[in-house]
Parts: sequence; structure tokens; C-alpha cells
Amino acid sequence: MTGHIMDNLNLNKHISGQFNAELEHIRTQVMAMGGLVEQQLTDAISAMHSQDEDLAKRVVEGDAQVNMMEVAIDEACVRIIAKRQPTASDLRLVMAIIKTISELERIGDVADKICRTALEKYSQQHLPMLVSIESLGRHTVQMLHDVLDAFARMDLNEAIRIYREDKKVDQEYEGIVRQLMTYMMEDPRTIPSVLTALFCARSIERIGDRCQNICENIFYFVKGQDFRHKGGDALETLLMDKENNSPEA
Amino acid sequence: MTGHIMDNLNLNKHISGQFNAELEHIRTQVMAMGGLVEQQLTDAISAMHSQDEDLAKRVVEGDAQVNMMEVAIDEACVRIIAKRQPTASDLRLVMAIIKTISELERIGDVADKICRTALEKYSQQHLPMLVSIESLGRHTVQMLHDVLDAFARMDLNEAIRIYREDKKVDQEYEGIVRQLMTYMMEDPRTIPSVLTALFCARSIERIGDRCQNICENIFYFVKGQDFRHKGGDALETLLMDKENNSPEA
Repeated sequence: MTGHIMDNLNLNKHISGQFNAELEHIRTQVMAMGGLVEQQLTDAISAMHSQDEDLAKRVVEGDAQVNMMEVAIDEACVRIIAKRQPTASDLRLVMAIIKTISELERIGDVADKICRTALEKYSQQHLPMLVSIESLGRHTVQMLHDVLDAFARMDLNEAIRIYREDKKVDQEYEGIVRQLMTYMMEDPRTIPSVLTALFCARSIERIGDRCQNICENIFYFVKGQDFRHKGGDALETLLMDKENNSPEA
Repeated sequence: MTGHIMDNLNLNKHISGQFNAELEHIRTQVMAMGGLVEQQLTDAISAMHSQDEDLAKRVVEGDAQVNMMEVAIDEACVRIIAKRQPTASDLRLVMAIIKTISELERIGDVADKICRTALEKYSQQHLPMLVSIESLGRHTVQMLHDVLDAFARMDLNEAIRIYREDKKVDQEYEGIVRQLMTYMMEDPRTIPSVLTALFCARSIERIGDRCQNICENIFYFVKGQDFRHKGGDALETLLMDKENNSPEA
């Protein structure tokens, strides 16, 4: 028991420097993982659009790296909780990281899935509708890029802007669904390949939702409370409320 | 500083009883949330299949309760980490709970989405293909029921069995996709409504993946390491390896 308390004492004396270094290291890893996922997604959309088989293969191979990074960061987070026993904003940062890397891993899965589909199915025939899916893809890449930036700086205003951006992604996706439906109705022989494109579009649209989830992790860190499930305007009012501006440090 | 250490001392004296009570309370909340999500999903599938508008409305209303439970349990978990500073298996349990309720919340979203779709679109025409989607739905409800049981008892063997069960859900889903594609090709006028059914089927199929994720949380708690991304047979060998059987308590 005494040993444990002594450890705590020593820790508390030296905690801030060492702890901050560890936390900083984890944040660096998160940004590296985010950068890799952004590259994977960018490449996946290029590979889909230009039917680039080699690039598609590289993305599929790269997914293992994304997965390994998630597991490594997750372990580092649990280790820092057990060892440093962070509270208040330090603990919120660790929790926000754990949730954010889970979203990033799932965005990585979308890149992987798009490329597996590209390798299997697109080569059979060129699909003109891939142009609008590519545009949707670029939109979500931009959203991901921006949310990673906002997460690095824990920028509340930028997170609010990105959160709202998802509405445009949804609208773009709805337009694609209507367009693809017309294709199928005009020429039912295209149904199997159009369905494949449709599932890709849907996976890409979901990336916008995952970016929104990362925004919610930023809200949680900055404001010290959970803003999930609050819905559009109410959310914005709450976030901007000065009363809510000073969480426990 | 001394006050902090005294607190720790006092805590350590009394920790196990109080801490265990708190942890037990959180586990009870998780099981209650799981029960509600299971009910929501069951009702959603019934509402979809029998075109029961009232039931669909009740499910949509019930989703707010699921969301509230997730936020409350999440907060309780972060509070227990900050206050009790759990380590080893206690910390793993808290982390496993945080990840599991996130999966449950998303399964709740599927129930909500199915019912919103049912309210909007199905009423326009009765769809015979809903029969096979209902069967897929019942399959995932059973999987969810079983994984909640396994989570309550942290039952490794049962978690492995459920993890493998997802392959059958995937096969069932593939069969539905082929069936729905035939419908559309035979009668292109059905395309819009069949697409709606197809998206429901896909959301339901994803519930199997979420149950697999909950299984991985059980693996993590029981074995003390992360078994994600290991893949089918290799995973099973690893899990069954006696060498890996004794994590830090």
C-alpha cells in the first residue's frame, strides 16, 4: 500500500512533464493515422474513378496499417489512463481520442471496401455515373481533412462549420440516388453494376456522418459535456452559449 | 497534495465495496439499455413486416430513450475512471462497456431508421420481399440477444460462437440482394420501393457486424488484449490458446 502511495507521490511530482510528453505522443500518432486514412480515401476514390487496379490493390494492402495504428493508439490510451490516472480535460482528451480513432478506422474500411469492389466489379464495364460519386467522394475527403485539422487544434467554431457541412453531403448523395435510379429504370440490364455503385455512394455518404461524430468529440473536449443527439439548431445554440464555455480544466 | 493522498488512502481502504457497487450499477444500466435496444429492433422488424404504423411511431419515439441511456452510461464510465482510477480488469471492463454502448446506440439507430422508412414509404405498396428481410431481422435480433447475454456473463466461448454466426447473416443478406435484384430486373417499376427495402436489408446486415464488435469487446475483457482485425480462424486459435488465458487481473 505504502509503495503504491509513494509511487503516486513521485508521479505527482513529475507528472506534468512526462504525462504531457506521453499525451503529445499519442496526439501525434492520431494525426499520423488521420493523415493515412485521408490518403487511403483519396486513393480509393481515384482508383474507383480511373479504374486503377494497382492503386486499388495498394489501398487494400494499406488498410492493415490503419487497423494496426488504431489498436496501438487504443492501447496507448488505456495505458495512459491506468498509469497517469488523468482527470478533467486530460481525461476528456483521451476519451475523445479513443472515439475518434474508431471513426477513422471505419472510414479506412470504406476506402478498403471501395477498392475491393473496384477490383472485383468495375472492370467489367465503365460507368459514367462514377463521375458524380467521385465528386461526393472528394467532398467527404475535404470534410475529413478539415475535421482532422479542427481536431488537432480542438477548434470549436471550425467543428461547428464542418458539422453543418454534412447536410450538403446528404443532399449530394440524394441526388446521386435519384440519378442512379433513373439509369436502372431506363436500362434494367445495368441494375447489378449500378447497385454496386449505389452501395459505394452510400458508404461514402456515411463518411460525412463519421466526420460529424468526430466533431462531437471536439464539442465534448472543448465544452466538457456530451452534445450528441441534440440536433441541428439547438446544438448550435448550446455550443455558442457563453454559460457553457468554461468546463472544469 | 497531502489531502489528495489522504483521499487516495481512504479510497483504497473502502474502495472495493463502493467501487464494485458503482461498477455493478453501470453494468445493470448496460443490460437495461441492451434490453431496450433489443425490444426496439424486434418492434421495428414487426412494424416493417406488418405495416404497423402505430408500432413504427412508438419505435421512432423510443430512440431518444436509447440515446439518453448511452450518454448517461458514457458519463458514468468517465466519472468512475476519474474518481476510482481503475486499472487492469476493472479498467478493461469500463472500456469494454464504453465501446459496447456505442454499438448498441447504433443498432438502435437502425431500428429507428427502419421505422421512419416504414412510415414514409412502405405504406404505398405491399412488398412480398419483406418476408425474407423479416427473417434476416429475426436472425440479427437473436444474435443481439445472445451477445447481450454473453456480455453480461463475459462468456468467451459463447462470444466466439456468436462471432462466427455473422457469416450466416452475411449469406442470408447476399441471398436477399440477389432476390431483390431479380424483382427489379423483372419489373423496373418496382425499383424505387425495392431499393428502399434493399437499404433496410443492408442496415440490418450491419447489425451482425456490430454484434461481432461487441464480441471483440468480450474477447478484450476476458483475454486482456485486443483481438480486432485478426480474422476468422487465426482469431479462434488465438482465443483458445491457453498461453493467453491469464491476463493481469
